[in-house]
Formats: sequence, C-alpha cells, structure tokens
Amino acid sequence: MKLAIYPGTFDPVTNGHLDLVKRGLRIFDELIIAVALNPKKQPLFSIEERLELIGESVREYDNLRIESFDGLLVDYVRERGGAAIIRGLRAVSDFEYEMQMALMNRRMVNTIETVFMMPSEEYSYLTSTIVKEVVSLGGSVKGLVPERVEEALRRRLFLRRES
Amino acid sequence: MKLAIYPGTFDPVTNGHLDLVKRGLRIFDELIIAVALNPKKQPLFSIEERLELIGESVREYDNLRIESFDGLLVDYVRERGGAAIIRGLRAVSDFEYEMQMALMNRRMVNTIETVFMMPSEEYSYLTSTIVKEVVSLGGSVKGLVPERVEEALRRRLFLRRES
Amino acid sequence: MKLAIYPGTFDPVTNGHLDLVKRGLRIFDELIIAVALNPKKQPLFSIEERLELIGESVREYDNLRIESFDGLLVDYVRERGGAAIIRGLRAVSDFEYEMQMALMNRRMVNTIETVFMMPSEEYSYLTSTIVKEVVSLGGSVKGLVPERVEEALRRRLFLRRES
Amino acid sequence: MKLAIYPGTFDPVTNGHLDLVKRGLRIFDELIIAVALNPKKQPLFSIEERLELIGESVREYDNLRIESFDGLLVDYVRERGGAAIIRGLRAVSDFEYEMQMALMNRRMVNTIETVFMMPSEEYSYLTSTIVKEVVSLGGSVKGLVPERVEEALRRRLFLRRES
Amino acid sequence: MKLAIYPGTFDPVTNGHLDLVKRGLRIFDELIIAVALNPKKQPLFSIEERLELIGESVREYDNLRIESFDGLLVDYVRERGGAAIIRGLRAVSDFEYEMQMALMNRRMVNTIETVFMMPSEEYSYLTSTIVKEVVSLGGSVKGLVPERVEEALRRRLFLRRES
Amino acid sequence: MKLAIYPGTFDPVTNGHLDLVKRGLRIFDELIIAVALNPKKQPLFSIEERLELIGESVREYDNLRIESFDGLLVDYVRERGGAAIIRGLRAVSDFEYEMQMALMNRRMVNTIETVFMMPSEEYSYLTSTIVKEVVSLGGSVKGLVPERVEEALRRRLFLRRES
Repeated sequence: MKLAIYPGTFDPVTNGHLDLVKRGLRIFDELIIAVALNPKKQPLFSIEERLELIGESVREYDNLRIESFDGLLVDYVRERGGAAIIRGLRAVSDFEYEMQMALMNRRMVNTIETVFMMPSEEYSYLTSTIVKEVVSLGGSVKGLVPERVEEALRRRLFLRRES
Repeated sequence: MKLAIYPGTFDPVTNGHLDLVKRGLRIFDELIIAVALNPKKQPLFSIEERLELIGESVREYDNLRIESFDGLLVDYVRERGGAAIIRGLRAVSDFEYEMQMALMNRRMVNTIETVFMMPSEEYSYLTSTIVKEVVSLGGSVKGLVPERVEEALRRRLFLRRES
Repeated sequence: MKLAIYPGTFDPVTNGHLDLVKRGLRIFDELIIAVALNPKKQPLFSIEERLELIGESVREYDNLRIESFDGLLVDYVRERGGAAIIRGLRAVSDFEYEMQMALMNRRMVNTIETVFMMPSEEYSYLTSTIVKEVVSLGGSVKGLVPERVEEALRRRLFLRRES
Repeated sequence: MKLAIYPGTFDPVTNGHLDLVKRGLRIFDELIIAVALNPKKQPLFSIEERLELIGESVREYDNLRIESFDGLLVDYVRERGGAAIIRGLRAVSDFEYEMQMALMNRRMVNTIETVFMMPSEEYSYLTSTIVKEVVSLGGSVKGLVPERVEEALRRRLFLRRES
Repeated sequence: MKLAIYPGTFDPVTNGHLDLVKRGLRIFDELIIAVALNPKKQPLFSIEERLELIGESVREYDNLRIESFDGLLVDYVRERGGAAIIRGLRAVSDFEYEMQMALMNRRMVNTIETVFMMPSEEYSYLTSTIVKEVVSLGGSVKGLVPERVEEALRRRLFLRRES
Repeated sequence: MKLAIYPGTFDPVTNGHLDLVKRGLRIFDELIIAVALNPKKQPLFSIEERLELIGESVREYDNLRIESFDGLLVDYVRERGGAAIIRGLRAVSDFEYEMQMALMNRRMVNTIETVFMMPSEEYSYLTSTIVKEVVSLGGSVKGLVPERVEEALRRRLFLRRES
C-alpha cells in the first residue's frame, strides 16, 4: 500500500489539479491532497473554503483524503507515512523551482521521493493565478475549473470589483 | 501491486541509472528495467552486454527484472501490465524531450502514466554519452559507473584507440 | 486591412518597444498601441503620462493609434476588430509566460491570434523595470529610451531619491 | 496585400503544420508554404512527394500557394515579395534555434520580419520526426497527420521494416 | 594584480556563496565581497549583521575584503579598480536574469566583464530564500550555511514565529 | 600570473570567438586558444588551417598563444598550468551542455575552474555552424567572421557546391 501526498495552495483548485489527482490514483494506492495553510501568500480563499471546494470536486474517488497542513512539507509527509510527493510539471520555469524544492526536501528526509507528473496538454497553461486574473477582469473560465469553483470566484472577485 | 517500467538504452548503465532504480523501488512494488534494442542508434555495447552489465549491478534488489524490448514502448508496457513509465529528469533539455515523448505515449495509451524522478544531484550531469567520451579520451569515470562497467568501457574504447 | 494590437504597461516606453512598433507596421496595415490601465501593478507613471510619452515617440508613423484599455485584452481586441495581438519575445522566461497568456487568450476568443516578434538584439536585455532601476541608482539609460522618457524618469526617480 | 512565407522541410506535413497554416491565413492576405529541398538532411519523402502530400491537405484554402525552394531562405522570400516569415513555436528548444535563425536572417535582409505563432496545444508535442518514429515502430498517428499522410508513412516505413 | 568583485545581498550568506568565494580566489588575485544595501528588498538581516556573518565565515582567506555598497554596481566596481564581476550560476532562470544584468552593466561600463562560475553541485538548489523558508518552518539547514548563520536564522525566524 | 585556456573546435573562428578572446585578456594575464583536434566531428578545416586562420586574426595581442590539443581537456590544462577554462555563453541550450561539461571536468580535476563569459550581444546568435550553412547557400557573413575566414569559407564551401 503506497501512499502519495499531493501538496499545494489550491487557491482555488483547477481542472488541471483534478486531472493530476486522477492520474496519481492510477499510480498510487492512496492519495492525500494536502492544502498548505501558507499564511504568507494571503490566499483569496480561506483554508476552509479551499478544502470545501476541493471536497465537492473529488466525490467520485475512494482512496483519496483532503487535509490541510502547516510547517515543513516533509515533516507532514513522514507523519502520514507517505512514500512520495506528487507535483505537476507544465513548463520549464515550473521545472526549475520544483527541482530546487524536491532536492531541498530530499536533503531533509532522504527516503521521501518527489515524482513529477504531467497534466493533460489542454491544461498546460492553467494556473490558479491566471484563473483568478481572468475572472477578476470579467472573463469566463468555464471548462478550466469545476462549476462550483467558477461561481465562488465570480462571487469573490467580480462583485468585489463592481463595488 | 503496482509495476513500473524504467526504459532506456543503457549504453552503458551508470550510477545515475542505478540511483533512479533504487528510488523507483521506493515508490513502486515492482520494477522492470527495459533495455531498448534500438538498432538505429548503433550502441557501443550489444543488447546482451548491456543486459549483463545491468544484471551485475542490481543483484541486491528483489522486485526487479531486467528485460529487452523492441517496438513501441507503450505496447510493451501494456503487455507487461505496467501502471507507469519512469524517466529520470536532469536538465531543461531532458525535460522538453521527455515531455514530448510522454505526451505522445499518453496519446497512444491513455491509461499509462509517465512519472519523472530526479537522480541524486551528484549525478545531475551524468549521461552514458559523457561517460563514453571521457573514457575514450583516457579519463577516469570511477564513481560514476559500476566498477565492472568501467572495465568494459576501458576495454572497448581505450584499447580500440591505442590500436 | 489587417489591424494588430500591441498591448503592454509601457511604464515607460523603451526603444525596444518602439523597435517592435516599427517592425509590426511592416507586417500589419494598422497598429494600435494599447496601454493597460493595470491598477494592481502601481505603475511609476500615470496612464496619461504613459500615453503622452509614447505619443511623443511615435510621431513619424501614420497607421498607428495609441489607446488605453481596461478589462480583458481579448474583449478589447475583438471590439476594435483586431486580427492579432503582437508580443515581443526576448528570453525563455518571457516565452513561457507569453505562451501561457496566448493560449488562455485563444481559449477565450479562438479567432484572435497572438504573433511573437523579436526586438533588435541590441535591446535583447531591455525592460522597463531594468530602466527604472538603473535611473533610480543614478545611471544613464541614454540610447535605451527616447530622450523625453529619460528626462521624465530622472525627474521622477532621481530627485525623489535625493529628497 | 501582405504575403507571408511559411518555410520548412515538411517531411511529412503534420496537423500541427496545417493548424499553423490556418492561423497564418487569419493574419496575412496570402501565404506560401515553402518546402526546402534540403538535400543534406536526407528526407524520407522526395520533394515531389512532400509537395503533393501538402497539396492534398490544403485544398480548402484560396490564398495559399505551395512551392519548393533552394538556397538562402531570405533570398527566396525577397524574390517573392514576402513581408514576413512564419515559424511555429512549441518549446524552449524550438525557441532558441528559431531566434538564432531569425536574427541571422534579419542580419542578411533587414526588412523581412520573422513572426512566431503557436500551434493549438493539442499539437504542442508534435514533430515530423516523432511521427516517423512512431509509425516505424508500428504505432498509429491517426489525428496527428492527414489520413493520406498516414498511409504514405505506413507504406514507406512499416513495410520497409517488414522486409 | 587582478581584482574581482563578488556582489550580492547575502541575506544571509550560504555555503554556496562561500564555495564561490573559494573558487573565485583561484582565478583572481584579490576578491571583494560587496554586500548591496538594497533598501527596497527589506532584508531579514541588517547590513551590519550581514557583513558580520560573512566576516566570521571567511577568516581563512587573505586576499579577501568585505564591503557594503550603494548605488550602481558598475560605479562601485570602477571606483575600486575591479577587472571583473563574479556571479554564480545555478539554473536557467538564474542564467537569463544574470545575462540581462551583465549586458546592462557592460553597456554602462564597457571595460568591466562579468564572469559566471558554478557552485559545487551539492549547492545547486541553494538560495538564501529557501534557507530562510526552511528555518521559518522549523527545519534544519545544517551543512547549507555556516553554523553561526544557522543560529542567527533560528533566533530571528523561529522565535519570531513562536511569539 | 593567471593563465586561462579557451578551448574549442574553431571550425572556423568567428568574430564571436575573437570578442571573447579580447574580453578574456582583460581578466587573465595570459590566454591560450586551444584548438581541439576532435577527429570525430570531421571539421571543414584541417587543424593546420584552423590554427592559421586564428593566428591571422589575433596578431594584435601579446599575451596570447594558439595551440592544438588532443585527449582530455583537463589533462591539457593541468599540463600548461592553467587556472581556468573560459567558455562563451550565448543561450540556454549552450548553458546546459556547458554546465554538464564543466561539472565533469571539475570532477576530474577539482582545482581547475570553468568561467563563463558573454560575447557582445551582436554575436549572440553566432556559431561556426550557422556561418558555414549561410556561406554554403551563397549568403554573406561579412562582419561575422574575419575577412580571411570568409574567403576561406567561400573557397571551400561555395566552389564545392558549384562543381
């Protein structure tokens, strides 16, 4: 029974994230989506909202848990007994930052591996940041995030702009 | 029981490859090192030699098989019942070629995932090609390949140069 | 009659931007330099100042308009009847961000193409940001921005530092 | 009336090339697909075959010609009165080589611009080389090249392998 | 007698920086570590603290001075009579920013060269930023920074978090 | 007295190479241009021709020698008492290959450093390969190589094509 951790800020979850979850479950027996509290980054959605938006989007999967974590990722992974950290790779700039983090994490806990997986190419340009930017300018992100997430984004970003 | 395939030309196997095998076995229940026949590339070592050099280097592992394959990688992986293809990532140029191959493979068989893993940073610059080049010029690759491989390289490349 | 839109923050316009305008007019019948209001980024120059600095630098061209825009770029381009968005490409990091934006824009309005053009290699390292940094430290940017822009930068950045 | 030249080896034409042709015709009034004779590269298909395979794939377009050329691309473009060279951009390695060629071409003929366009993301990993490799190993490239091209590839590559 | 300047924010100094100092002294007769005041970046350690932490880490070297500087780097280098600026290169993203800065500096003072050197591969992922992040989350950076620096980081970052 | 080695194939020498020589002599007391015999690559010009073409282009410099070498670069550098290897950096793909070679060389002889320098941006796209390609197609490389080199290229490549 191999457990993998898929960490991130998920502010908010996108279809690219969900595509990676689906692919991760083909490889690992069990998956935890681990939402970083990350108080420095000032996320748009609170940790409770982010957990809830993910929860509503992954009901179909059995071997999946959603949790929040604070502190060092490797400490959290070790505590849960995870064999691997999953990270998505889209582009070269991703790749370098991810490699840097993976090497640092390996240095701290040598037995935890980071595995990189690719989202479907239709999500190759998709980030939570670009999704927020488009919605804040009044654009549609249909097909890029779950319907519930688009609603939440619109309520949060667009109305704010109107006022 | 998740099986992963680690394909390559392995001409010859390096300590970077072996590092990846060790890491792959932490993630997957079973691993096959799949040596591509690859007649186009005119390898330095025959398929039999490459299989033998790997075999001598991985005696310590249980859940590991070594095989050769011909034809499409995805056909071979499907036949073996593999859940994933493992590829090592060192540098940006690696990354792009690997991503291209992974997307093409996914297009052919959608249920097989490619996972990318990083070798230890001490092997970040190590390729079979550079190893062959150094030995052919009379240099030492001690610590970069198993001892048996260094001997085989020296016999093949250096003596050839003398004659 | 093909119209292209060249969008940006232009805070302030550089000779690299002007080089691209000249090249764009070779390809398209008509060009609009579209200055993003971009209230988030807190530009150094107001939208009026940015429009004026550009206006003084492009007097020689006929088929060129300068406008400001707010909201989604693709909505603005569609409204104007633009066939293409022009973007300058200098470096790899440029390239990835630009590709991401271009794919997102295409997803929103499939009929508008983004075309990438290269500034002259003498401007390959030139950005509005580096220009501002150099002037704020008392350096000269002669030859990198129009004379009027250098004066405006000096007045805004250097005197501020003195006080 | 702006004419653009889309040069390449097209050995053979793929759906990624055709996607770029369609996009180029949105920007330019007229397009020439210019097939390089390129005797050094030893193409799989003769120049006649390559021209014919393209011709059968672009019947729907009016303002499009298909020609072969030899010698310097910029000389050919100048002779035809082209305003621009179109090149597709997929990945970073593409980007650097393309930029190098574009700067060299600009140095030779300063008034001809190179514009870079992106194929649809579903073709982001598609090259003539990978298509030939897959077919030669017995795989399918359905949806990646026109049907006629797949047949020609299969006849050329697969039967050759059998014999 | 060739003098080189090694500029940076050094907030704080890491073993990667110290590795580069050691390598720089093999090439140049004399070295100055030049700590940028950089008031915009809001460093964690004051300029006095940064100078002191470096000073305690490089006692073994003779031809080395540590200084702070303000304003344009090239002005400072010229004033000191430096022949070269040393910069460390780790990754592609480094590379592009560094190249941009080096070309801008060359434009301002054409006789000062920037030379790029590589830290040992064990520090290939090491930045002051990642070190601060790890310590702020309670992790260990033993072996990545001098002992005195780790203490200073822990006192500054971890206790702050507790309170 | 610091000696640096600038190795390469120089098939043929370009103005980009000569620019780097000039810059290297600002940093080092003495320089050797070391021409690799490199029998594998089948150079266009013989080792004697390459040495001669360089020799005619660098008459103005005093502290410069031109030599050929065979075998491992680091062995040659050590024999000559060199403190550093100089390499030019133009683009990302350069960078990765160069970094790989530099790390391999360091592994073999730890006391020899590789320093990377940038050619002038007007040569940022210049390689011996592109120069040969342009001349073989009948184009001009005036300003990119010394006059004597252009003549030699034309005699070798263009006449060959005519016959």
